[in-house]
Amino acid sequence: MKKKIIILTIALSLMFTVLSGCIDETTSDANAQSNPEKETENLVANQYDSNDILYQVSTINALLEGVYDGDTEYGTLKQYGDFGIGTFSGLDGEMIELDGEIYQVRADGVAYPVNDTTTTPFAAVTFFEADTEMRISEPMNMTLTEEYLSGMMPNKNIMYGIKINGTFEYVKTRSVPKQEKPYPKLVEVTKNQPTFEMEQVNGVIVGYWLPVYVDGINVPGYHLHFINEDRTAGGHVLEFDIIEGKVEIDNTYDFFMDLPESNDFQDVDLSSDKTSELEQVEK
Amino acid sequence: MKKKIIILTIALSLMFTVLSGCIDETTSDANAQSNPEKETENLVANQYDSNDILYQVSTINALLEGVYDGDTEYGTLKQYGDFGIGTFSGLDGEMIELDGEIYQVRADGVAYPVNDTTTTPFAAVTFFEADTEMRISEPMNMTLTEEYLSGMMPNKNIMYGIKINGTFEYVKTRSVPKQEKPYPKLVEVTKNQPTFEMEQVNGVIVGYWLPVYVDGINVPGYHLHFINEDRTAGGHVLEFDIIEGKVEIDNTYDFFMDLPESNDFQDVDLSSDKTSELEQVEK
Repeated sequence: MKKKIIILTIALSLMFTVLSGCIDETTSDANAQSNPEKETENLVANQYDSNDILYQVSTINALLEGVYDGDTEYGTLKQYGDFGIGTFSGLDGEMIELDGEIYQVRADGVAYPVNDTTTTPFAAVTFFEADTEMRISEPMNMTLTEEYLSGMMPNKNIMYGIKINGTFEYVKTRSVPKQEKPYPKLVEVTKNQPTFEMEQVNGVIVGYWLPVYVDGINVPGYHLHFINEDRTAGGHVLEFDIIEGKVEIDNTYDFFMDLPESNDFQDVDLSSDKTSELEQVEK
Repeated sequence: MKKKIIILTIALSLMFTVLSGCIDETTSDANAQSNPEKETENLVANQYDSNDILYQVSTINALLEGVYDGDTEYGTLKQYGDFGIGTFSGLDGEMIELDGEIYQVRADGVAYPVNDTTTTPFAAVTFFEADTEMRISEPMNMTLTEEYLSGMMPNKNIMYGIKINGTFEYVKTRSVPKQEKPYPKLVEVTKNQPTFEMEQVNGVIVGYWLPVYVDGINVPGYHLHFINEDRTAGGHVLEFDIIEGKVEIDNTYDFFMDLPESNDFQDVDLSSDKTSELEQVEK
């Protein structure tokens, strides 16, 4: 894979030229930590070595269709990752897991601690290990930041964990209010989603960039959540302007999906294309 | 899940009425062996307990695009399943794994034994444990058999392993000839695929029924291979007429995907919809 490493280096060098002010801290061999067979053997041998596996509960299309109750406890999910995003049974807010701590940003925009017995209908976690790390030292908006990140993710056919620890001029997030049965579709819920604006805030963006082919299973492209430095506020990221920060990327070659046993999941129709609905709910 | 079990029983009873001559042997609780969390903990604790996980190497769309070289050895795959289907590096034939033995049906239609060091660009294996078992005791063609199987798979949102051990009036299979670089797309290779017809043959159909949402990752619906009783011939199933046999279904709630590290996989474009190409190559 030497050829790829050289190309990665060239790509990153170009990024520096374009975005002067960005200093490369480390650009580790994207493959050093990611031999899928080895990881899987490690997973089998010891879950705490299974650091390059994206572990997911249910599918995004089941969530879009209103399957908001899950039977997977966050205490269990912690065994499969210390970093991730998701939601809660009843669609009771946005989930951020960071450094093994799970936070629940409810419809009031406040981040609450989460018990191990709390359950989720949809979440994706991993043990975060940075394969590539860079510093943002010039202000960038969300679009420019995503272009910048793209240069750190040269393989568009694998999965990436994304962590941005920084100082933000502005962050706009949303959450979702807890739903009662019969559950409406997610696209109906997000029509009236509460949004929150934070200015001059320190915090961490937690999320993923996933390839196109996960369509129907998870969110292709970027899916980012935010938690502030005090761990008191955050949500699903709609917009941000970053002043400076550290970007870390975790190259992920293995994917594990745990399908629900519930009647709700069995009964939902997952046969139709919901790409446009997904685009609406992500905004 | 009692309600589902009753519905399953009713569904199966209806099948018996429609297809008189079919005798239900056992219809186990479809959930008894399939608590995803438990399975995953088992996977972590001991790979040999991880019996309800479909373990896949690469994606079907990468294979469609001509990514025919893989670095996963069959010796490794055996650790994740004793049952499955796939192909070989260079697209050198059709793979059938049955009872932990791996067979390679080359372009001559002959089944060859496989070394543990042989590699694959695409394969899907599981530890096969029947959750539902039934007997076919009246002749049925492929279409009728697939309708019959459908009644044994009430949850269209999970994955199923399928094993049919029987006596066949007729089985038509195909294989694919080993390719040389630069590799053509799979749809080009299958235009001139060698096919094989067997009459009055005993053998085993090995394969999967997968939900629509795996599109791009694996084959939605049925994907079946065949190996004869002598383990000397078989291939990718195109058509069959079964006289009698035993059908076993393995309900699978967990999915593991191991993405290749190769340059070929990194460089291939997996962003377009290849549904029609997939339909062509499966025939």
